Amino acid sequence: MKNYFAEYFGTFWLVLGGCGSALFAAGIPGVGIGFLGVALAFGLTVLTGAYALGPISGGHFNPAVSIGMFVSGRLSYKELLPYICSQLLGAITAAGVLYVVFLGGETTVIDNNLPGAFADNGYGDLSPTGFDVISAFVIELVLTAFFIIVILGATDKKANSKFAGIAIGLCLTLIHLISIPITNTSVNPARSISQAIFVGGDYIFQLWLFISAPILGAVITGVVWKYLLEDSKS
Amino acid sequence: MKNYFAEYFGTFWLVLGGCGSALFAAGIPGVGIGFLGVALAFGLTVLTGAYALGPISGGHFNPAVSIGMFVSGRLSYKELLPYICSQLLGAITAAGVLYVVFLGGETTVIDNNLPGAFADNGYGDLSPTGFDVISAFVIELVLTAFFIIVILGATDKKANSKFAGIAIGLCLTLIHLISIPITNTSVNPARSISQAIFVGGDYIFQLWLFISAPILGAVITGVVWKYLLEDSKS
Amino acid sequence: MKNYFAEYFGTFWLVLGGCGSALFAAGIPGVGIGFLGVALAFGLTVLTGAYALGPISGGHFNPAVSIGMFVSGRLSYKELLPYICSQLLGAITAAGVLYVVFLGGETTVIDNNLPGAFADNGYGDLSPTGFDVISAFVIELVLTAFFIIVILGATDKKANSKFAGIAIGLCLTLIHLISIPITNTSVNPARSISQAIFVGGDYIFQLWLFISAPILGAVITGVVWKYLLEDSKS
Amino acid sequence: MKNYFAEYFGTFWLVLGGCGSALFAAGIPGVGIGFLGVALAFGLTVLTGAYALGPISGGHFNPAVSIGMFVSGRLSYKELLPYICSQLLGAITAAGVLYVVFLGGETTVIDNNLPGAFADNGYGDLSPTGFDVISAFVIELVLTAFFIIVILGATDKKANSKFAGIAIGLCLTLIHLISIPITNTSVNPARSISQAIFVGGDYIFQLWLFISAPILGAVITGVVWKYLLEDSKS
Repeated sequence: MKNYFAEYFGTFWLVLGGCGSALFAAGIPGVGIGFLGVALAFGLTVLTGAYALGPISGGHFNPAVSIGMFVSGRLSYKELLPYICSQLLGAITAAGVLYVVFLGGETTVIDNNLPGAFADNGYGDLSPTGFDVISAFVIELVLTAFFIIVILGATDKKANSKFAGIAIGLCLTLIHLISIPITNTSVNPARSISQAIFVGGDYIFQLWLFISAPILGAVITGVVWKYLLEDSKS
Repeated sequence: MKNYFAEYFGTFWLVLGGCGSALFAAGIPGVGIGFLGVALAFGLTVLTGAYALGPISGGHFNPAVSIGMFVSGRLSYKELLPYICSQLLGAITAAGVLYVVFLGGETTVIDNNLPGAFADNGYGDLSPTGFDVISAFVIELVLTAFFIIVILGATDKKANSKFAGIAIGLCLTLIHLISIPITNTSVNPARSISQAIFVGGDYIFQLWLFISAPILGAVITGVVWKYLLEDSKS
Repeated sequence: MKNYFAEYFGTFWLVLGGCGSALFAAGIPGVGIGFLGVALAFGLTVLTGAYALGPISGGHFNPAVSIGMFVSGRLSYKELLPYICSQLLGAITAAGVLYVVFLGGETTVIDNNLPGAFADNGYGDLSPTGFDVISAFVIELVLTAFFIIVILGATDKKANSKFAGIAIGLCLTLIHLISIPITNTSVNPARSISQAIFVGGDYIFQLWLFISAPILGAVITGVVWKYLLEDSKS
Repeated sequence: MKNYFAEYFGTFWLVLGGCGSALFAAGIPGVGIGFLGVALAFGLTVLTGAYALGPISGGHFNPAVSIGMFVSGRLSYKELLPYICSQLLGAITAAGVLYVVFLGGETTVIDNNLPGAFADNGYGDLSPTGFDVISAFVIELVLTAFFIIVILGATDKKANSKFAGIAIGLCLTLIHLISIPITNTSVNPARSISQAIFVGGDYIFQLWLFISAPILGAVITGVVWKYLLEDSKS
């Protein structure tokens, strides 16, 4: 049970920190943290979660990661569904806390005049800078695929796996540096679902992309890693 | 005695670096470091203090952390009060040094037109972007609770504890990325008290929140960690 | 073969992340990541690639680095050409992906009114802030030379080589912090070629500098390191 | 001799990267790296230099650090002067390279309308935001003192000294986050002298402060560390 609690708290932390920094601190004129600060925040939720909770659960905090680990044979079939449920519950609880805090603020101060209400993911009219559905699908798929490459590579037997928390966390920062303007960056279905629930409308209808593209990217890497990169003797 | 000196110097460093960067460098038009730079500065005071002074005292630099360590059985009752006194003295000395340096500057240059005189913590009218008392209490409690989760997790026997200084320091950066706009971020009663002393007025009256919320968050985590996350066999 | 795939994917990642962040996220008014974010992105592609793929191929992701390693006797003559070809192919594939994503966006949003179309490298009229050919050649040569010093030093037998991925990745960040305004920063012929192919024109004609200066810098360091810095007994 | 070459190249790198990023990239409207980027650049010169050249020379790159190491008994009297000379030569060579590159640029683009020509250090009229001589002396002394605390602590026998390069490098970043607006941040006489030589005038007359305050801070810490913090048994 402890590993499910760890995934619950870790995904809570990812959504609270990543989406929270976007909501409260990104768009303040002059001193706001901007997309760079949000990218750093998302990465640091995973870096800190990996060193604190990773020893308990492996530190996935993301259904696409758990599916990638399952395809690569690093997570059992029996654990997959409880992991995903813990992640979804953690993400939704965090979005609820953000919502409560959000209600006590003067929201006009944090409006950055770009789409992305409540740090939701979107494409087309809901893309922060107007990227279409193809751009959104391609970038979410490719970035999740490389996220899984970094996770599999940095935790491989041949790797300095003690550094994996740094590499994986900062990989999520890098991913956000590229793609916040395109989709507000998902690569994590739990993070997309939790935010869409509190806003509703078109954000719900666009969830298909932020569920399918990350999962497809994760599955592709699970296969590519095995056949092109993994040392068959290890 | 060396551990009390280490806590004194470490908390001095936290306030000097974190509040100092906010005071002198955050709001300069065009080239200022903004809330992102202040968040980085707070985190780096703890990261550097942890590797330099952590081997001597454990590197708390924060009464809420010492209380969390006490609740978790990692700090003795006998040491708790001297730790907190050392931290308060270090914080107040640093605020005094900042005050001396501040007097020799043209303060108009560093005014960022947001509340938060002398990097004080506040809510309501004293919140940098106008968040009310409930938002302030919730965010300070939740963020301190997760700060203690990261500290307990990253220094656990099962963890790569050599990386704890990086994880804990960058966790404080993450916490600031989320909440500077809400309360100027405390999660540390010593840091709040030292700044309020030099400004006085309403900042003193609001100290109750920045003492009680972080301590309550730390106590909650001390219990949650023990029953939900800690390996009972370790 | 696995090492060639690793170089292919690693250089893909470098161009996708570094040039992608520059294209999509640098110049957005108010919340854009700026040159600081791009510098961080380039560095993190190498940091993450080094921990994920470094154990497979050494993690060069750059023809100038491979040539520097060859001059220093750390890469065999037989492997040099396949490494460079894999890097070029990876870079060009990534530029193609960026091009596809780019077509689906409203490009006017990401125009920062500075030269550097498609994150290309250039000097003179094509320099982001108007530096001439001599400044460009000197800075590319000197920065590549120090990049190779950091690579050779951080992976030396006397060094804590487990930290090399952090040092080398953040060295590339540092290099970009200095020189994006001068040449958009190359120090990597593969990254320059891949972008120039998609834009053409004068960017193609200026490629001579971004091939020769980095390679010359790498060769100079290969010699300097051997005679002035390397421990002859190690 | 190799250790003197390492100090030469390391201090060259510190000035090239730190002052170079300030000169070329800090003040570009909209996308410039600002004081945050410059702070990161200074820190990364030391972080990268520490892992690459630290195993050869200890990685001081700063006369105040060498004097602090001498006072603490970690550098011999015989080596002190050659270390300082190597550092001065490295810093001046780097300033010369920066000068050559600078001449090939359109300097109006990088003017940030604040004092600090050629990234020089200054107080009073030459302080970036107008801090007087007392503020400048206090902040340079205190920050150098803590820089030496971090160096001595992070490289102590009781410490995880493999992480010292990260802690010491990011400590220099932190120092710059606080004090660029006050003095453009020295804490390093070699870095101040090299820049003042190329600008002359009042910057030369103010060098007394940027030589005496850092050295005094280093000497104070050498004594404080020994009597208050160092484990007498170690």
